[in-house]
Amino acid sequence: MSLAVSAPLPVIEGLDGPLMQQAQRRLDQLTKPLGSLGRLEAIAKQIVGIRRDLRPRLAEKVIITMAADHGVAAEGVSAYPQAVTAQMVANFLRGGAGINVLARHAGARIVVVDMGVAARLSPHPRLLSRKIREGTSNFALGPAMTREEACAAIAAGCGIARREIERGADLIGTGDMGIGNTTSSSAITAAITAQPVAHVTGVGTGIDERTHARKLAVIQRALEQHRPDPSDALDVLAKVGGFEIAGLVGVILATAAARRPVVLDGFISGAAALIADGLAPTVRGYLIASHRSQEPGHRLMLEHLRLAPLLDLDLRLGEGTGAALAMPLIEAACRVLNEMATFEEAGVSTKSP
Amino acid sequence: MSLAVSAPLPVIEGLDGPLMQQAQRRLDQLTKPLGSLGRLEAIAKQIVGIRRDLRPRLAEKVIITMAADHGVAAEGVSAYPQAVTAQMVANFLRGGAGINVLARHAGARIVVVDMGVAARLSPHPRLLSRKIREGTSNFALGPAMTREEACAAIAAGCGIARREIERGADLIGTGDMGIGNTTSSSAITAAITAQPVAHVTGVGTGIDERTHARKLAVIQRALEQHRPDPSDALDVLAKVGGFEIAGLVGVILATAAARRPVVLDGFISGAAALIADGLAPTVRGYLIASHRSQEPGHRLMLEHLRLAPLLDLDLRLGEGTGAALAMPLIEAACRVLNEMATFEEAGVSTKSP
Repeated sequence: MSLAVSAPLPVIEGLDGPLMQQAQRRLDQLTKPLGSLGRLEAIAKQIVGIRRDLRPRLAEKVIITMAADHGVAAEGVSAYPQAVTAQMVANFLRGGAGINVLARHAGARIVVVDMGVAARLSPHPRLLSRKIREGTSNFALGPAMTREEACAAIAAGCGIARREIERGADLIGTGDMGIGNTTSSSAITAAITAQPVAHVTGVGTGIDERTHARKLAVIQRALEQHRPDPSDALDVLAKVGGFEIAGLVGVILATAAARRPVVLDGFISGAAALIADGLAPTVRGYLIASHRSQEPGHRLMLEHLRLAPLLDLDLRLGEGTGAALAMPLIEAACRVLNEMATFEEAGVSTKSP
Repeated sequence: MSLAVSAPLPVIEGLDGPLMQQAQRRLDQLTKPLGSLGRLEAIAKQIVGIRRDLRPRLAEKVIITMAADHGVAAEGVSAYPQAVTAQMVANFLRGGAGINVLARHAGARIVVVDMGVAARLSPHPRLLSRKIREGTSNFALGPAMTREEACAAIAAGCGIARREIERGADLIGTGDMGIGNTTSSSAITAAITAQPVAHVTGVGTGIDERTHARKLAVIQRALEQHRPDPSDALDVLAKVGGFEIAGLVGVILATAAARRPVVLDGFISGAAALIADGLAPTVRGYLIASHRSQEPGHRLMLEHLRLAPLLDLDLRLGEGTGAALAMPLIEAACRVLNEMATFEEAGVSTKSP
């Protein structure tokens, strides 16, 4: 498959198994009971396999937060007006949003991308414009975007990830902003995992029962009408996706292709991961699920991708905030491998015979 | 109750409820859907209530790791020889252990305390000696320590916490080292929570089935023989506890009394928290459970204390490693409160009418 004549899908190789076994042997010699650092040890091993480096360092961390609007917001599926997407992008650029605070705390840089906000955003030195269009079409009425638009958005995401990796990014986190995007992500999840819409659709930013019922009905009707083909992830993306989700698909694919770990934020990033996985299943080895979102569909996404989240803090903010919170844990895993003494080095007795 | 004529139990006041409500109002005005930062918001509010400060800062972080030996190790209940306790203290002082790496990563200082290691440790500028005795007595044969020794160890822990708070500690984490100390902690848990020994006793550092059966039998017999009184936490501590556990009880009580949050590590710190809670139930409001240990008794401890852990990463190392890993999350919670913009400040629309 190719995204366009000039941009074939990036090639994603498998992890380096023999090097991961070497990492395991070192982990087993460190001064701690065997396996006692649990998930941290698994993460350290995964990163060795991704980076092909027995002493991986994660110095440069970047969170790519992509924003876009959703035509389906016209159906009244969100608690907030559509204008909030552009207002929050402005908040990101001024540094006052949740992702700004948490990325600063994690020592990560943020890259804010307009993938299709329904407003003319003033140019800003920290804003990348990759606008496909001012919001998707309302998928209650027709497909959200054309297949060509989906490909263009993925290619734009690939380009941004490659640029950040050229600038030295060792670890890339994903983030999103877009009023209506849990509706799109629920539709993607239902289509890909074949789960009932009611199981994958939550309250998003905090809608009431009536709005939730409307959201369910909108998704249900759209899936019946468009019949997205779960074996063709691009078809699912074009019919019920969003431009920020498509952009994140590109970020995920290009980051994995460059042998860097991808830290997935929550539900919207998970929808992008489902699509990326449909396009290139080897991507899974590169994914780290930062947290379990309060959105009910997120659990099913993670099961589908066979990922276990690092955090479970009842978050449902998006923007990349979960990814930012998980980054210190991922760095900690690498530091254990790089900095702990072995039993031999420390002169500590091993298990009793 | 008093620990000695000269050292009464520290007075622990309740949290500042009205100020916590003010913090909640601010959290609700920040540019995010209501409650969407989940557990982080609850932690921020708790710290406001503890510190009596609407903009709490956690600049200075300290992990107090206490080491001691356990006479019950003679029963063959551990996977490692007793000498490992002293060897690991040396590893802590050289900086090669898990807690060194993870505390460095969290930006926390470590204080290593000899509460009763069964060896003469060479003096070291970074080692505090508060040795009660070279290891507890074997509680399979008689009480682990006298009531006076338990009080002395608690008083020593109080003193160390007070010293660190005088030096500026804003956030104190607990940690432990002691071959045999999961046996002691399981016995404490069974005594305080009235749960069956089999439900609260795990494999510690990684023992085989035969050793596990022996560990269960040793604890069962000791509880039947000594009949520790669950309504008298000091009695439980003296009969089946350890010197590092008693020291940590003091750390927890004095930290709470000084209105600082206490970050509990895993199973051993949890045993200390059960005793501290028995002595002064108002301590609960000051506790933050860093993670859920793989030790089965830990879940029951946390339920007893009504604490929900921040992390669940299959850790079972101890030393304070879980506390170190959770500290960045706790700081993040405070930074959200201090640094995020409100809807008004950012010019972002609130919910649709």
